[in-house]
Amino acid sequence: MKDVQNQPDDRNIAINKVGIRNIKYPISVLDRAHAAQHTVADINLYVQLPEQFRGTHMSRFIEVLNRYQREIDVRNLDDILQDMRERLNSEAAYLEMSFPYFIEKQAPVSKATSLMEYLCTMMACQHRDGRKDFVLTVKVPVTTLCPCSKEISERGAHNQRSTVTVSTRMNSLVWIEELIELVEKCAVCDLYALLKREDEKYVTERAYDNPAFVEDIVREIARSLRNDPRIIWFTVESENMESIHNHNAYAFVEYNREAASGEI
Amino acid sequence: MKDVQNQPDDRNIAINKVGIRNIKYPISVLDRAHAAQHTVADINLYVQLPEQFRGTHMSRFIEVLNRYQREIDVRNLDDILQDMRERLNSEAAYLEMSFPYFIEKQAPVSKATSLMEYLCTMMACQHRDGRKDFVLTVKVPVTTLCPCSKEISERGAHNQRSTVTVSTRMNSLVWIEELIELVEKCAVCDLYALLKREDEKYVTERAYDNPAFVEDIVREIARSLRNDPRIIWFTVESENMESIHNHNAYAFVEYNREAASGEI
Amino acid sequence: MKDVQNQPDDRNIAINKVGIRNIKYPISVLDRAHAAQHTVADINLYVQLPEQFRGTHMSRFIEVLNRYQREIDVRNLDDILQDMRERLNSEAAYLEMSFPYFIEKQAPVSKATSLMEYLCTMMACQHRDGRKDFVLTVKVPVTTLCPCSKEISERGAHNQRSTVTVSTRMNSLVWIEELIELVEKCAVCDLYALLKREDEKYVTERAYDNPAFVEDIVREIARSLRNDPRIIWFTVESENMESIHNHNAYAFVEYNREAASGEI
Amino acid sequence: MKDVQNQPDDRNIAINKVGIRNIKYPISVLDRAHAAQHTVADINLYVQLPEQFRGTHMSRFIEVLNRYQREIDVRNLDDILQDMRERLNSEAAYLEMSFPYFIEKQAPVSKATSLMEYLCTMMACQHRDGRKDFVLTVKVPVTTLCPCSKEISERGAHNQRSTVTVSTRMNSLVWIEELIELVEKCAVCDLYALLKREDEKYVTERAYDNPAFVEDIVREIARSLRNDPRIIWFTVESENMESIHNHNAYAFVEYNREAASGEI
Repeated sequence: MKDVQNQPDDRNIAINKVGIRNIKYPISVLDRAHAAQHTVADINLYVQLPEQFRGTHMSRFIEVLNRYQREIDVRNLDDILQDMRERLNSEAAYLEMSFPYFIEKQAPVSKATSLMEYLCTMMACQHRDGRKDFVLTVKVPVTTLCPCSKEISERGAHNQRSTVTVSTRMNSLVWIEELIELVEKCAVCDLYALLKREDEKYVTERAYDNPAFVEDIVREIARSLRNDPRIIWFTVESENMESIHNHNAYAFVEYNREAASGEI
Repeated sequence: MKDVQNQPDDRNIAINKVGIRNIKYPISVLDRAHAAQHTVADINLYVQLPEQFRGTHMSRFIEVLNRYQREIDVRNLDDILQDMRERLNSEAAYLEMSFPYFIEKQAPVSKATSLMEYLCTMMACQHRDGRKDFVLTVKVPVTTLCPCSKEISERGAHNQRSTVTVSTRMNSLVWIEELIELVEKCAVCDLYALLKREDEKYVTERAYDNPAFVEDIVREIARSLRNDPRIIWFTVESENMESIHNHNAYAFVEYNREAASGEI
Repeated sequence: MKDVQNQPDDRNIAINKVGIRNIKYPISVLDRAHAAQHTVADINLYVQLPEQFRGTHMSRFIEVLNRYQREIDVRNLDDILQDMRERLNSEAAYLEMSFPYFIEKQAPVSKATSLMEYLCTMMACQHRDGRKDFVLTVKVPVTTLCPCSKEISERGAHNQRSTVTVSTRMNSLVWIEELIELVEKCAVCDLYALLKREDEKYVTERAYDNPAFVEDIVREIARSLRNDPRIIWFTVESENMESIHNHNAYAFVEYNREAASGEI
Repeated sequence: MKDVQNQPDDRNIAINKVGIRNIKYPISVLDRAHAAQHTVADINLYVQLPEQFRGTHMSRFIEVLNRYQREIDVRNLDDILQDMRERLNSEAAYLEMSFPYFIEKQAPVSKATSLMEYLCTMMACQHRDGRKDFVLTVKVPVTTLCPCSKEISERGAHNQRSTVTVSTRMNSLVWIEELIELVEKCAVCDLYALLKREDEKYVTERAYDNPAFVEDIVREIARSLRNDPRIIWFTVESENMESIHNHNAYAFVEYNREAASGEI
């Protein structure tokens, strides 16, 4: 059969990324405790397509995925990208993968354990000339409590669930667990799936004693990330589902260690 | 050209609903103040298809929609449904329509005005034998504050944004505005797009003084709806985006005046 | 500490369902081949709350979930519901659980294997008086090709991805795999994650040779489900993401064996 | 009352963007025919926050929005941004706004008219030093038909709905209508809300006669955009909801006229 994809192309337009999106795939991720964690990923795979070729070969993306037998992980992303580059004869390969990641947490007083879910994303690319990139993103739900509301009110203070999103480039491995702990330490209070009565008292009072604007949250996290020499670039954003409004409060900070003169 | 849709069908299976989904359409809705409110609806249109016909005529649904010149509204739903039944020669016609609806609200102390958005849905149907149905649904975002957290904590109380969804069948018209007011009066505190400092103090203290479980919220609203003789059936649900958990608290009540022995 | 939830309530309103929504939880499901399949579920858990009690105990839902050690499955849904009813001292307990389910499929000609994802939902409830309900839902993506477009056009025919959703009540177990196979047999053509060139030729020609309206799809599936005596109630819907429109074509059939006089 | 937001901050971290997200707001947009088009926008508003201030004043964003009386449009984005910068005393202001936009289209043969909906996004920013940016994005749903499937199959060819997303920076105004027309001319076939039988024959045959890979689609559009001297930067992406797979095919091209040596 005629290979239409391999026809020459004279439009003189290279395609930055071509491939497949929204493949759902069961994967097994190694966690910090060195246990395999089974989860389900939403995966995008792309390659660069030079200007002289009409099309890529979409089925080969799936073949590369199948070769790894569900072991798709920070440890072998490089191998997967190299496979993609070679099988598809391309200058550059890209992988984006989002998955829920579960961590067992203890409630702060009762020590009752439960699972918390964090949405993680890995974005990786590899060029034929050796250039690489890897960005790890985690979404951490936290509590925030408004300092202004506390200050001006005789009692109470409005608080809400917020989602903190941290993206990082690193010069040596930082575990997902480390990023989550860093964010949770900077938050007004972290979240738990299971809280007994004594825990609920603790988190209510801790939040009230520890108010923070959305601006404070991203600054505290930025300060911690800036102090970790393994992290060479990051963005931090927090989106607060304001309990007193139907819109969200939002703040965003970007930091590049190379570009910085010592400060963000 | 051959009319494939009109071919006979011998599978002996009537189709309850066949039609089109997710048409976006600009509409103009009359509000309680008798002003036209321009908004954008997401519309589904279906008819019943008898067992002896192979297919319906999808393009006629759009033709019916176009005939109403964007004036699609509780006042002419019956005409639209009748048109659908006649144009498509069907026993029954169904219309579902969701749209954001805006109401100007005054902040509680400063009286500063701003627009609040409420998602509304109208579901209507009409049968050839005269049977009709009409369900009006509104989603109202509110604040909730946990009575248990307040009771057991020395200071503060966890609170959050919640979404109350009320669906009603009526024996005489109830304005969207009336349903929203009813829900907002039963909530711990209602939401505003614009709050000045003095308003923020007010809503913080009002919420703290007025705690309610998700169970309390749906019961208060159910009690109010039950007291309105125009409403002959309703469901109330509240989903609280808990500030201390990454999951939501939820409660649901259904009431049918005919079935009730005076009580829910 | 005071148990606010156990306070009496005099509003005389029982709550049909109260509990937690959108808990993400890793689960292990037994598949037809008797292998454990790891996946991630989105879970809702509710109980009925009698009119005389003010609130339920939200943390106990999570405790029940934790007791099952991720083995949450059609085999032990009854045990989970009974636990919920007993721990929460309730008349009725409800569980809703959605999860991606993976099946290895062979391409039709090359026999290359790949994983297909199907979204499944289990809804179960149990009453103290012994009444139970269980509904299994599967979403199956398929190809559809328009008979009218084929008939009136000199070449080609518009086709598209469609999502078929089947919900069933059964009098004896029907495997998820069986429902999926039944739907895929009735479709114009089923989908695959991996198709080689010879497979693409096959599925293109098969779809062209086998056109079906959205009405045909739901009728064929309804006919097959009606012929399976284990299935006592079902709904079938198909939503076609029309390649020639920006809206979807839709059809829906409901069938109840008890109510039926032999036919839908 | 104490102004907590104006407290000094010593963490030495400027915040790139702080503000509000997901405000729904009814707006009126001027279209190419100089008619006002009523629609509903989803709006984000941010300012830069210097390192020495603790917080911004969230309520002022809403006040700026209210001042424009729903006339929020490409014509006054600069005024809105300047207002934001001044009211919030900031170095930079950002506005992002997405809204459905409707265009009346004639079916290709019957000339029957109907409304097509296109999702548009405007992103604008303004710095105190005079730097500005403006990016206009439109999403255009189209039909695509696979050349490989057509070539290797004896009859038929798989086709599907695809979404083309074009983002542009311009040196003089390009109407939304112009971008949409450009994309639709490059597609295998454009979409219509209303097609009569003779139109359906036309679009089926046109698509079959005019196959294009996802790579072809983005290249054709890139070529047209490159030929328009008003457009100084663009990205084009197409995502095809493959009718034979449950994942999507995707291609992406970016072009910067300044960086280009005459070619992409």
